[in-house]
Parts: sequence; C-alpha cells; structure tokens
Amino acid sequence: MKKFQVVGIGNAMVDVLAPCDDAFLADNGVEKGIMQLTDMARGVELYAKIGPALEISGGSAANTIAGVAQLGGRAAYVGKVKDDQLGAIFAHDLRAQGVTYETVMAGRDATDETGRCIVLVTPDGERSMNTYLGVTEFLTPADIDEAQMAEAEWIYLEGYRFDGPESHAAFAKAIAACKGAGGKVSLTLSDPFCVSRHRSAFRDLIRDHADLLFCNRAEMLSMYETDDFDAALARAAAEVAMVACTDSENGAHVLCDGQRWHVPATPVTVVDATGAGDLFAGAFLWALTAGHAPEDCARAGCLAAGEVIGHIGARPEADLPALMARAGLA
Amino acid sequence: MKKFQVVGIGNAMVDVLAPCDDAFLADNGVEKGIMQLTDMARGVELYAKIGPALEISGGSAANTIAGVAQLGGRAAYVGKVKDDQLGAIFAHDLRAQGVTYETVMAGRDATDETGRCIVLVTPDGERSMNTYLGVTEFLTPADIDEAQMAEAEWIYLEGYRFDGPESHAAFAKAIAACKGAGGKVSLTLSDPFCVSRHRSAFRDLIRDHADLLFCNRAEMLSMYETDDFDAALARAAAEVAMVACTDSENGAHVLCDGQRWHVPATPVTVVDATGAGDLFAGAFLWALTAGHAPEDCARAGCLAAGEVIGHIGARPEADLPALMARAGLA
Repeated sequence: MKKFQVVGIGNAMVDVLAPCDDAFLADNGVEKGIMQLTDMARGVELYAKIGPALEISGGSAANTIAGVAQLGGRAAYVGKVKDDQLGAIFAHDLRAQGVTYETVMAGRDATDETGRCIVLVTPDGERSMNTYLGVTEFLTPADIDEAQMAEAEWIYLEGYRFDGPESHAAFAKAIAACKGAGGKVSLTLSDPFCVSRHRSAFRDLIRDHADLLFCNRAEMLSMYETDDFDAALARAAAEVAMVACTDSENGAHVLCDGQRWHVPATPVTVVDATGAGDLFAGAFLWALTAGHAPEDCARAGCLAAGEVIGHIGARPEADLPALMARAGLA
Repeated sequence: MKKFQVVGIGNAMVDVLAPCDDAFLADNGVEKGIMQLTDMARGVELYAKIGPALEISGGSAANTIAGVAQLGGRAAYVGKVKDDQLGAIFAHDLRAQGVTYETVMAGRDATDETGRCIVLVTPDGERSMNTYLGVTEFLTPADIDEAQMAEAEWIYLEGYRFDGPESHAAFAKAIAACKGAGGKVSLTLSDPFCVSRHRSAFRDLIRDHADLLFCNRAEMLSMYETDDFDAALARAAAEVAMVACTDSENGAHVLCDGQRWHVPATPVTVVDATGAGDLFAGAFLWALTAGHAPEDCARAGCLAAGEVIGHIGARPEADLPALMARAGLA
C-alpha cells in the first residue's frame, strides 16, 4: 500500500470572503464567476473597497486535498506560503485536517507575501475570485520531493499552477516520479480563462500523462474551443482514460472505458459556491482510491460539492464520512 | 450635534474560530463559557491542537462599535494592533463598516503580534475564549485623543481593557475629556473573572463616573459578590443612572429612574454565542442616542444579539437597520 492515496500540488492561498452585490462587481471591473489574477496593488485597491470580510484557508487543490483527508484518505499537499501570519494559518488548517504538508515556507525576508484570494460572493451564491499569487507563484522543481511523489497512488495537479515560471518543470518532475513508481496522474483545468492561457500545455499533459481529467462545462468547452459540449466530452474521453466533468446544477458527467454516466447534483440552497469543484474532485479521488466504480465516484463528488456549497468557505464543515455512509459509499 | 454617538475603547483582536466538543475543552483545561488570558506559548500550544479554523475580526468593544455603525450610528474605536497581516485585517473590517479608527499601530519591530482570541465553539453554541493580548495590552494615555473623546456623546469602556498596565490611566484620560465636554460614560464588565480581577477599580468607576453599566447576570453577581440577582441589580441601580443587564435566554433587564423593565430574548437557534453581549450593547447605545426609551433600547439590544447568535462570528451579517425598522425601532 502506498503511503498516500492522493498528493495535490497547487496554489496555496488564504481566501478573503466578502459578500457584495452585482453592481459592486460591475463598478470595480470584476468579471463574475471566474478567477482573475491581480497584482499586489490591485489586490490592495480591491480590499480597500470591500466590506468586512472573513479569512479562511483556501487554494483549489488544497481544498481538494482537505476533502480527501476529511473523508479519511491518506493525503499530502505541496504549495508555497511565506513564513507570515497568513502562511501559518494556511499550514495549520491543512495539518489540522490530517494532511501531510511539508513544503518549505518562503522566508520572512521574501518580497511577496502569502497568496490570498479576494472572493466576492453575490446573493446568488456565485463567487468571483481575485487572486494575488504572492510567493505561491514561485513553486519550483526543488519543492517537489520525488520520494513523496513515488509514494502517491494519484497526484492531483492544479491547472492554476501553470501560471508560474518554474511550475511546468515542477509538474514534470512530479509526474515522472509518480509514474515511475506506478502512480497515476490527475489534472484539473481550474478555470476557462486559465485554459485559454495554457491550452497547449494542458493538451500535451492530457494526451501524454494524464489518467484522469477534472473540469467543468465552461473549461471543457474552452479546452476544445467548441460550443458542442457532447463533442468536447467525446474528444476528451478519446485522449484520457477517465473524464469527470461537473455541470453546475446539472450534476456531473463521467466518461471511462467507452461508457458515459450522468449523476444529478445534490439539491441544496446555494450559499457560497466557492470550493464546489474542488470538493467534487476530492471526494471523487477518495472514492476512486477506495475502489468505487466511476459512477459512484461522481456520486461521492456531487455529495461533497453539495455540502460545501451550503455554507460560507471552501473547506468541508459537515461530517463528510457520515454523509458518504448514508449514501452507501463507506 | 457631536461628531460621534459612541466611541469605544477596548482590546483589538482577531478571532480564530474553531468548532470543538466538550471533551476537547476538558482535555485541554479550557473553562467553558468564559474568557481566559493566555500567554503566547499557551496560545501556540492550543492553536496546534484545534482543527481547521476561520479568522474574523473581533474584540468585544470593537464588535459593539461595528454594531453601532451598521445601524447607521456615528462611531469611532480606539484599540491597538500591530502593523502585521492580522492587524491589517482588523483595521480593514472596522473601517469597512464605517467606523472611524485611527489608533497608531505598533511597529513591525514590536516583540508582540496583533492580539488574537481562539474561540472554541461547542455544539450548544457556547463559546470559550482563549485570549493572547499581544500588542493590544499596551494601550496608553498617548493613544487617547482628547479632542475625539470630547466629540463623543457616549464613550464605551471595555472591562477587559483593565488588564493592561497603562490602561487605567488611558481610561481616566478618556473619561475626563468626554465628561468635560458634556459626554457620558458607559462601561461593560466583560466577564465574571475580569470582575474578580478588577472589582475595586470597577466599583470606583461605576460610582464616580459611569452613566450606564452593561453586564450579564454572572458579571452582576460577581460584581456585588452575591447570589441574589435582584439585590445585585438594585445595588447597581443605586450607584449608576442606568443599568442594562443581559440574562441569556431570559433576555435583558433595564433599570433607570427607579423603574425596572424586562425584555424577553429573541427566539433563535444558537449557532455561536460569540458577540451576543457586544451586539446587545451596540444596538442599545445606538437606540439610546437615537432618543429611544430605555425599554426600547433593550428591545433593540435583544434583536441585535439574536442576529449575531444565529451565525458564526461576532460581527453582524444581516441588515440590522431593516431588523430594527420591522420592530418599529427606526
């Protein structure tokens, strides 16, 4: 048995959550429902304009890995924070969830700070993200422990992390070490605009290395530059062994071994959509490494996504194992 | 018209909220339902043991003042943070609520950090607080702007702040400046154990300077060292012009001009009791300075307390002015 069921690599962020209305988004040039990268100055400007906020650990792959761990999965995470107060909060929350997290912090003299994401939550529960990457941008191959990657049944690569100068090399190192030891590679496309920025690199990774692709409808359409969702799903399924594609209130689609399943979304009142896709992936990977069939993995994913949508913040709060047990997914 | 309806002075803190069960409190020597002071080492030890948490601005008087401002009151706050990430969060959240907040931050080279309070929330919604004061302990007379105090209809003094070496002198300066300009003084007893630490100083302040005393039942009993609640209320009412005493699920009592009123609590499912007393005081002071009768001030207080009890965190989330308007307290 390998030491870890899943090892995630991504942007280590603290979320700054604030409610706002749609007019605020328009007035401040924030595009609704997506992730936009900001520099420090824009982050400071936006922060000065938002109302009272709350701070809670986030980061897409980190949310996913927290979900795996909360379900009892053996999980580790790789992502860079600084040795500052927000970095300490991020590290605490991940470790407190039972995640192995050993990435070396950037020192106190680093110019940048721990990354943060201003998450603007509109009354419809949709979230619009404004990300100052800070030190998390500078993840390098030196941060990848090949022995740890070799101990992973699956690695989970966050598409967002393709934005960093040395992160493609870091991912390549992780993939080689994992695959060399018989492990498998999963990738999330993260965001439709992230796909635009890195389509060619994503395509190479999907065709050459990935065993499982996570995405949502918008990312899938962006990836294959089409408006035909079914055609895009079919193209993805031809390139990678397993595809798990979420579709908001329509649930999720799984394609594997020439088959396709659809699982409906969990009926829930949307409070804050932050983390829905992340927790879908976390529960899916947990179920997959626990030996469940693809359709059941998607059911687990939809259940976990439904939990995180029902409250503020992107990390699970309810007893996820009990939730799974009630659905026969122990 | 004075510039400020209320100026609060207290401990500037960021709350670290984490759920836990009663066994965790017992295992870690945390006394339930009260505030305990910790040093940095104990804070670090406790933080390492708690699960994933969320960070949100707190501080008793700061919560009160945030409530005054959210209700449309003109409000200012005095309390010390450091120029660090948590200090920036505290300052942002208060100013974003419309509060005037100009206390000079402790510099980056200060030994201590911005104060924080680990708030352990048990399933019954009760909160047990573990406070590392950090730089907020070092509030001095130099931090009190006499011109600002003279511009206050009311100042609101946090009993917790009696724990600092120079804070008695700071309070004396604030009281003199406020009263000298015709303003009034309110005091909250904060916590029964805080009362034990400072009973004599509190008594002097109540008799000699206070125009309005806020407390809860336990603090009132501790203040007058008796088990007879009615007797304690009567003694307080003989010493100070107005007494507003909360009584958990029994609501609140107000004594003024030889009369006594009881207002029932707002029926609500308790999620997190943090901030209930603070918001009671905030809405009470807002209503009082808006010209409402004592009984109606207590009604406003119970309504605001009910709002903050119903969600995580000690700052109001709902539209408090709308809540008041529906109760005829515009």
